[in-house]
Amino acid sequence: MSLYLNDIPLPEAQTRLESALKSVGIWGVLRVETIRLDENALGRVSAETIWAKISSPHYHASAMDGFAVRAEDTNSAQPASPIVISVAVEPRDPKTGLSIKAKYIDTGDPLPIWANAVIPIENIESLDHNGAITREIRRPESIRIRAAVTPWSHVRPLGEDIIATQLVIPTGQILRPVDLGAIAASGYDQIKVACKPRVAIIPTGTELVPIGSKLEAGGILEYNSLVIAAQIKAMGGEPTRFPIIKDDFDLICQSVEDAARNYDLILLNAGSSAGADDYSAKVIDELGTLLVHGVAVRPGHPVILGLVERKKLQTRCSSGNAVNEILKPAIPIIGVPGFPVSAALTIEIFAEPILAKWLGRQVKYLQTETAQITRKITSPSGDEDYIRVVVGKVGDRMLAAPLARGAGVITSLVQADGLVVLHPGTQGLEAGDEVTVKLYRSKSELEHTIFCIGSHDLILDLLAEFLSKHDRRFISANVGSQGGLVALNRREAHLAGSHLLDPQTGEYNIPYIRKYMPGIPVMLIALAKREQGLMVLRGNPKRVETLQDLSRSDVEFVNRQRGAGTRVLLDYYLQSSGISPESIRGYNQEEYTHLNIAAAVLSGRADCGLGIAAAAQALDLDFVPLFQERYDLVIPKEFSDGELLAPLFKVIKQRDFREAVTTLKGYDISISGNLILEEP
Amino acid sequence: MSLYLNDIPLPEAQTRLESALKSVGIWGVLRVETIRLDENALGRVSAETIWAKISSPHYHASAMDGFAVRAEDTNSAQPASPIVISVAVEPRDPKTGLSIKAKYIDTGDPLPIWANAVIPIENIESLDHNGAITREIRRPESIRIRAAVTPWSHVRPLGEDIIATQLVIPTGQILRPVDLGAIAASGYDQIKVACKPRVAIIPTGTELVPIGSKLEAGGILEYNSLVIAAQIKAMGGEPTRFPIIKDDFDLICQSVEDAARNYDLILLNAGSSAGADDYSAKVIDELGTLLVHGVAVRPGHPVILGLVERKKLQTRCSSGNAVNEILKPAIPIIGVPGFPVSAALTIEIFAEPILAKWLGRQVKYLQTETAQITRKITSPSGDEDYIRVVVGKVGDRMLAAPLARGAGVITSLVQADGLVVLHPGTQGLEAGDEVTVKLYRSKSELEHTIFCIGSHDLILDLLAEFLSKHDRRFISANVGSQGGLVALNRREAHLAGSHLLDPQTGEYNIPYIRKYMPGIPVMLIALAKREQGLMVLRGNPKRVETLQDLSRSDVEFVNRQRGAGTRVLLDYYLQSSGISPESIRGYNQEEYTHLNIAAAVLSGRADCGLGIAAAAQALDLDFVPLFQERYDLVIPKEFSDGELLAPLFKVIKQRDFREAVTTLKGYDISISGNLILEEP
Repeated sequence: MSLYLNDIPLPEAQTRLESALKSVGIWGVLRVETIRLDENALGRVSAETIWAKISSPHYHASAMDGFAVRAEDTNSAQPASPIVISVAVEPRDPKTGLSIKAKYIDTGDPLPIWANAVIPIENIESLDHNGAITREIRRPESIRIRAAVTPWSHVRPLGEDIIATQLVIPTGQILRPVDLGAIAASGYDQIKVACKPRVAIIPTGTELVPIGSKLEAGGILEYNSLVIAAQIKAMGGEPTRFPIIKDDFDLICQSVEDAARNYDLILLNAGSSAGADDYSAKVIDELGTLLVHGVAVRPGHPVILGLVERKKLQTRCSSGNAVNEILKPAIPIIGVPGFPVSAALTIEIFAEPILAKWLGRQVKYLQTETAQITRKITSPSGDEDYIRVVVGKVGDRMLAAPLARGAGVITSLVQADGLVVLHPGTQGLEAGDEVTVKLYRSKSELEHTIFCIGSHDLILDLLAEFLSKHDRRFISANVGSQGGLVALNRREAHLAGSHLLDPQTGEYNIPYIRKYMPGIPVMLIALAKREQGLMVLRGNPKRVETLQDLSRSDVEFVNRQRGAGTRVLLDYYLQSSGISPESIRGYNQEEYTHLNIAAAVLSGRADCGLGIAAAAQALDLDFVPLFQERYDLVIPKEFSDGELLAPLFKVIKQRDFREAVTTLKGYDISISGNLILEEP
Repeated sequence: MSLYLNDIPLPEAQTRLESALKSVGIWGVLRVETIRLDENALGRVSAETIWAKISSPHYHASAMDGFAVRAEDTNSAQPASPIVISVAVEPRDPKTGLSIKAKYIDTGDPLPIWANAVIPIENIESLDHNGAITREIRRPESIRIRAAVTPWSHVRPLGEDIIATQLVIPTGQILRPVDLGAIAASGYDQIKVACKPRVAIIPTGTELVPIGSKLEAGGILEYNSLVIAAQIKAMGGEPTRFPIIKDDFDLICQSVEDAARNYDLILLNAGSSAGADDYSAKVIDELGTLLVHGVAVRPGHPVILGLVERKKLQTRCSSGNAVNEILKPAIPIIGVPGFPVSAALTIEIFAEPILAKWLGRQVKYLQTETAQITRKITSPSGDEDYIRVVVGKVGDRMLAAPLARGAGVITSLVQADGLVVLHPGTQGLEAGDEVTVKLYRSKSELEHTIFCIGSHDLILDLLAEFLSKHDRRFISANVGSQGGLVALNRREAHLAGSHLLDPQTGEYNIPYIRKYMPGIPVMLIALAKREQGLMVLRGNPKRVETLQDLSRSDVEFVNRQRGAGTRVLLDYYLQSSGISPESIRGYNQEEYTHLNIAAAVLSGRADCGLGIAAAAQALDLDFVPLFQERYDLVIPKEFSDGELLAPLFKVIKQRDFREAVTTLKGYDISISGNLILEEP
């Protein structure tokens, strides 16, 4: 057992696992059960080929309400010289139809054997015994027709839909609603499907607590098993979440042995690395065979693949149906890394192919789309690197904006529209490079995506919330006000949030727009006025009350990054108050959002930072208001006039939206939606 | 009540329904329930916005196993001049860390308050009290480092993933596995979701029998309710299938009234037209308000939309959870047409938007793709016309091949890769026209589609079955051998099945390939030899034994269409036997497949027809063998060399495939896979 993992390439890891599963005879459909053909068959995978037992229709059927006739009897009918055909309810000679020539039938009724066509009821005139038109349209004495019909018109011939013996549904099909109908139409009321593989998910870790628990420092909410269980369910497996096990070799061994009795696959979450409390590899070594420890994928490299021995053999599907069980001596186990992004990707990369094989279906395809990456990406060249991106169309370019790359950032998977996979040997990407994105969403959805970039404000979260009701996804990236204008200039977003104060003129945003977006006509609208002030711990223990207090030697400050509107505001007021930045401890300590400033104060990393009241409220800090500023939306004209952004203007004026904004502390919405500037 | 429906345009029908639902206060989320956050929340729709209650991580956490340090203590470390930092298990001053400078911590542990960076364990040397390297890597006396670290490196700062109060999941999101994790990470262990709308599906029709029943003429298997229930389930509703009701006004009224007590939506299947036994409109008129009867859509125009009064009000979600019920005086009812394709499309068009609204989610998007239609389509100009198509890529063109258009052909929905919607005013389409296809499958799947066209043979069904295991969809269209070659010449398929005998040379296919595909190099491989003969009713009641018998006046023949290989074969042998086509009754009665010929004989429409043994066996007919012929696959070289068709050549040589072919009657596989011709 080595301290450091020896990562092997992903394809080699996959091959080792596949070979091992083949060698113990579990690289194919695991078990089959027969189920009733009802709506619960939806999504199951067919384990037999459906060859039609019967034809549909199984007789020549009328396709309309109308009169069955012999087509040849109608040959001479013309608009100006109609013909009259006699009608009888029952034919005197059922075989030849002699003495009757037309018979009323409903849609779906069998065609009389002597007939070969149907005339729809709306194309005839019903006559009584005097030859006058009658309202007894379905029981006339005779019918008058003004057009000939060709043989087999308005008839659904035997087997029009399905002919007995034809292939209806192949083995390995994920059953959809219409498939169920076609199987039923082929004469079945049950079907053989692959049993759902039973997957045991064992969370391990002394620091783990169940979701919903009150947290203390060092405690971690155990939600990986929840995500993994849902992934397994979505893949067609049957997940069972085991209780949390402490980092204890014997307890983990016992839990894995228990699982090995009754499950098909074990997912042992965390402890897969080589740390002091990482027992997964040792447990697998003890109970079976360690195949792989460490795979060159990012995030997720401390993956373990192995086999453990099965102690007792199961013989039934979990549904209780009898199954054609083949005895298997071992079952696969995956040591899943603990970081949530690593865990989720490990399941997609390693568990999905196993489940697909066991269910007999294809591995699920993700749609791909070509896009341009919006910023430089570096990547260790030996790894398969899975970059989460959001994707949207700005103008006529499809853009992929990389999300936070930390393996612990589950929200990066929530926000992700897809993955860009960098293969080993790729050094990284330059901004503007073309990439292939594996999409989690349909392309149509992406075309309803609004990209907002620039300064962050909590109102943007509210906008996202309200716009989702208008069929728009509103994605905001925080790069500071100035960064937003630069991005608009590069046409990388539809709009930007900005609150850049010009020290010369005291005007907001316009001078900066001229500077950073030369020649691009824009619409500038006010979103709100908001307070900026100092965030401090509850009770303001250091008594930081004014800008002057920042120069005190006992006060540690945390600053926003250069280019952020708040930084510009601070520098403006520092200058006008004659305070030098050098006198402020922590002036060079930078954070990228208001909420990160608040977090720095809350954690004790700093005593105070400048930001908005809402951020202080969010993390339960006290707030010392200092200035009021205007926060605007900058929208290039080419987008402000389009269909995509139309709901945005609507929402800003909506009463319920404005009410929601006022619940945030420190906002003045009297100017919201005001047009500050509109260039032609 | 009128006999003929007065179809109104689709948008008007949708508007009437929406207005009616608004007027009774049910055009929004119906009911909300709080559920546990477990894997069963997958696919549910959030009915609240999740704003984070806690941050994640909720403390500064180590991102690696390693040593917590103050970054400033490491400033002078360099590869050639390392520095040594002392280590202690517990600090003497927990606030300042004075007297200790490094402390071992595991991944996920809280950073000591005095530290601001972590050095990963693989980047240090552990030293004992003598300054020698020790194997006690986690409990050394001191550590030696050879590189400085920057503040906050290998630290996950508080809120790196989620900051308390941020928006995590909006209202109306269909919950995915990672969403559940993010909600849990935000401090929740339960969530408010929209209750599943309860949908009653009432099948009506005296002719209906449950699936699996033995069928008699006029009996129809009731599988629409199965398809509809599965559709409703897939849309997020909770379907209940009611027992089949006879065509009886009072019984249907009673069933609808029952449903109106406990359900949110009633789907009354069939009886929606204006025939003698069509009671749906009358029932709705009796119990509520008929809003629409007849919509200009094809297939599916006899749609009914209405409201019925609710007799008693429900107060709980079906899960038993208490709900915020608002009393509703009426519930919508849809009279769904009886033909299966019409029924399925009616649910997609009318039920999906209602369920989406009630669940608070967006209407589901279908991906769209541009393709060229392969043949002329006529369309009544007043209707929205839903054309089912199969889609595949042939060379560099995406093609959409229209499927059978009959509303009764459910297999057309099973085979469909998507829909082309022709809007009112469109006269139809010419072959080669560009169309927008709403796709049921991902584009990637379509690129694994093999288009086969030409003469039909049952082996093609087996090929489809075997190829599905090789990640290929094999779609075959039957247009006869000659039609297949013409289609290949137009580059509308990847290969064609052909058995065209040249009367001059007695050679198969090659002369026809020269004629119909001039200048296109091909590969020609033999698929099988097969018997052609006369299909007759069991026991051969008319004693049709030879070709000469076809001229008998008491024998009715059914022929294949011009251009079919079997037709060419017949004409060849008729000529060589000196029998004139005019002497054969039914010579001009044409069918397009072997199985349709068999169906014609089985139904009594003809006494015999020429075809293959397998088709006779399929419909349990007797077979009088007359000739043996060769059936080949014609593959243009540009496709035979490609990746797409590679598995085809593999399958043809597979033993299990060849064994499957021999179970079909009348086949000789000794020549299967032989290369007849390969042009450069």
